[in-house]
Amino acid sequence: MTISHDLLIVNGTVVTMDEADTVIENGAVAVSGDAIGSVGPAGAVDVKNAARIIDADGGIIMPGLVNTHTHAAMTCFRGLADDMELMTWLNEYIFPAEARLDHDKVYTGALLACAEMALSGTTCFSDMYLFEGAVAEAASHAGMRAVVGEVLYDFDSPNYGPIEKGYEYMEKLIHQWQNDPLITIAVEPHSPYLCAPQLLQRASAISGQYGVPMIIHVAETRAEVETMKNRYNLTPVAHLADIGVLSPRLVTCHCVAVNKEDIELLRAHDVKVSHNPESNMKLASGIAPVPDMIRAGVCVGLGTDGPTSNNNLDMFMEMDAAAKIHKVQRLDPTVMDARSVLRMATIDAARTLGLGHEIGSLEPDKKADIIVIDTKKPHLTPMYNVYSHLVYAVSGHDVQATIINGVPVVTEGRMTTFDTDRVMDAMKPIAEEIRHLHDWDGSRAAARKKRK
Amino acid sequence: MTISHDLLIVNGTVVTMDEADTVIENGAVAVSGDAIGSVGPAGAVDVKNAARIIDADGGIIMPGLVNTHTHAAMTCFRGLADDMELMTWLNEYIFPAEARLDHDKVYTGALLACAEMALSGTTCFSDMYLFEGAVAEAASHAGMRAVVGEVLYDFDSPNYGPIEKGYEYMEKLIHQWQNDPLITIAVEPHSPYLCAPQLLQRASAISGQYGVPMIIHVAETRAEVETMKNRYNLTPVAHLADIGVLSPRLVTCHCVAVNKEDIELLRAHDVKVSHNPESNMKLASGIAPVPDMIRAGVCVGLGTDGPTSNNNLDMFMEMDAAAKIHKVQRLDPTVMDARSVLRMATIDAARTLGLGHEIGSLEPDKKADIIVIDTKKPHLTPMYNVYSHLVYAVSGHDVQATIINGVPVVTEGRMTTFDTDRVMDAMKPIAEEIRHLHDWDGSRAAARKKRK
Repeated sequence: MTISHDLLIVNGTVVTMDEADTVIENGAVAVSGDAIGSVGPAGAVDVKNAARIIDADGGIIMPGLVNTHTHAAMTCFRGLADDMELMTWLNEYIFPAEARLDHDKVYTGALLACAEMALSGTTCFSDMYLFEGAVAEAASHAGMRAVVGEVLYDFDSPNYGPIEKGYEYMEKLIHQWQNDPLITIAVEPHSPYLCAPQLLQRASAISGQYGVPMIIHVAETRAEVETMKNRYNLTPVAHLADIGVLSPRLVTCHCVAVNKEDIELLRAHDVKVSHNPESNMKLASGIAPVPDMIRAGVCVGLGTDGPTSNNNLDMFMEMDAAAKIHKVQRLDPTVMDARSVLRMATIDAARTLGLGHEIGSLEPDKKADIIVIDTKKPHLTPMYNVYSHLVYAVSGHDVQATIINGVPVVTEGRMTTFDTDRVMDAMKPIAEEIRHLHDWDGSRAAARKKRK
Repeated sequence: MTISHDLLIVNGTVVTMDEADTVIENGAVAVSGDAIGSVGPAGAVDVKNAARIIDADGGIIMPGLVNTHTHAAMTCFRGLADDMELMTWLNEYIFPAEARLDHDKVYTGALLACAEMALSGTTCFSDMYLFEGAVAEAASHAGMRAVVGEVLYDFDSPNYGPIEKGYEYMEKLIHQWQNDPLITIAVEPHSPYLCAPQLLQRASAISGQYGVPMIIHVAETRAEVETMKNRYNLTPVAHLADIGVLSPRLVTCHCVAVNKEDIELLRAHDVKVSHNPESNMKLASGIAPVPDMIRAGVCVGLGTDGPTSNNNLDMFMEMDAAAKIHKVQRLDPTVMDARSVLRMATIDAARTLGLGHEIGSLEPDKKADIIVIDTKKPHLTPMYNVYSHLVYAVSGHDVQATIINGVPVVTEGRMTTFDTDRVMDAMKPIAEEIRHLHDWDGSRAAARKKRK
């Protein structure tokens, strides 16, 4: 029987990331509509009757990367301030800049981030920020899969104002996007130290009611753990357990400063963890005990965190860091081998976001989120081990094509869904305003200093 | 007066890396022959009468990056074996593969590395390996600046045989290349643990006689320090001091396991250090105390180490790692700021190799080793701080043009000096042989196991 497909990707090493870690040399993937039809050796996948063929030209065909934690619209502030103490960074630079944000600016920043992510092989991202309705619109326009949630905390938000309005904003988003093929709205309280127990419990209830993820920063720094111990006499994770919000739907981002008991709580409740090594390194937060979590059976997905604390959204670079940082910390070159790291950026990242049944591996009937890597380059020649190449040598810049939900969003290294030049132009006046704000703040700080 | 130039690079932010850290917005650089003629604002550099103009299109114009330590021809083995114990890696994979090397294979591997380096913005590299005559030829053919030296050790070499032949080989190279505009031959004993004191002293004398650098691996691991203490009752650095080979010409690579006294010895003798953070992370060697060395006044240059222990030669990724690893180790986000890291990859790297008077910064009369970064990309828009962008956001893939000794070796992201496709083709049979060797060794190991 001849089956006709909408899209065929041929002539590459297919890295499926399925349960058996199947790798198919000279393989092909067929796509029908938004889903994968078949995956197999060149001869086994029918290459006739395809509306469109993408030739991998001897490269790598693999699942799109899944970024489990970012703040996409912070592209507006990338490089505005680095190499400084967290509180200086937040109070002097980030908070004043964020006070100027609005829906349109977040839309522009998020769209720029979508281009960066899709161009570097990310097909799905999880986002926590302000004005998340704009992020959902940007992802939808870009053709990217996304889990997005408005950040909730005890104080007033530059977007919705008081917290009651925050719940309204969030539930409106949930209803607005509930049947969307690409967008999932999540419930996203900022952290146990900026959210009272009542807020966390209500957020958890809403997450349960709609069956959507709840995503939260947890134990990012030792200072946070101290704060929580002083306030509740419990670690952040133990506090979350205490108030009853640990669940398989919960995604805890960072988990740098967690102890053995915390890891056991995460495992027992099947809580998911987002690992953000580059941000944790740059902000000097510490090194999350990820090898211990994985050994304990906790599902860990990789994330870049926002572009102000990284400063890029390239998941290939994040994989490289994730593979290396634990080796040097433990003085053991065998921990976090390349295949485990690739799982963290694909199937385990998908599972982290509750999307493991839909994406994260190349298997029939899963959604067609696929990327193609061009390996005909000096830095990728020769290739002995595809996992090693993907983690230690390939960069996001080597991505040739990105297919999301069956749609080629990137072909020949260019976005097909929108004009990136126009979005870069739209960023100019935003950057001018931020730059001016900082100049003004600098003068103000100087004036303050003078007065003293 | 009108001066005619051979090449003008215009319309970019010029990051000079001179003493004053001068940055010129909308600047230009004029090149005459192999040297920089002038550097300044658009208006101050005469843009008439130029034989050729490169338009940076609003991007960044900066000194080429200087890679202070690599083993370029190991591109032949990139990804052959990773994530394993050092001795397994060396004995089961690298040594058997290296036993098959010859002049032609090293030439092919080095040429491929030259393409990778030049395409990612490196204009000068320092190389230690076997058959270094082939590396000098490859660099010369590629148009790259290089410091190359045949590795010397107590046992026989697959290239020259016994050590006496090694001195002959090296001195022949020194004479052969002594007036070359691009190639410097260095004296390169492997390490204090694989070289007897007599070898190190003779190597040092030759380095002094010809006024060329002596380059050596030192204190890469704690195990090496233990070995040296057991053998000489001294740390590796103290042993080198004891036998009288510390000098301003000496480049010590890695220096991971050095103590305060070692750092004071390095400083007192103006010994240079090559810092290779990605390799030290991947091989789980440890984290070199670079912030302490810099504070003490030791000159530190950045290097990638070989492509089997990294696994790429992208100095932008190396800068990113160098900026982050010390922050997280010391839990201090202010150490290793972006500008200091960029110095380690440019002017201080040049000083490390004894080339600080010729390259490493954009200043009149220095050699014209210049790169141009294309910043019209989503991941580089907007730009607030050029140093931060270069270290945390730019990748080697963003390099648009690479000029070495006045010659545009890369334009529009492509090598101009040789056909990279042909070299990638030439690598195929080499990789086939290595792959087969490993299969055979695997069977042999399995057979051995069965017999037991």
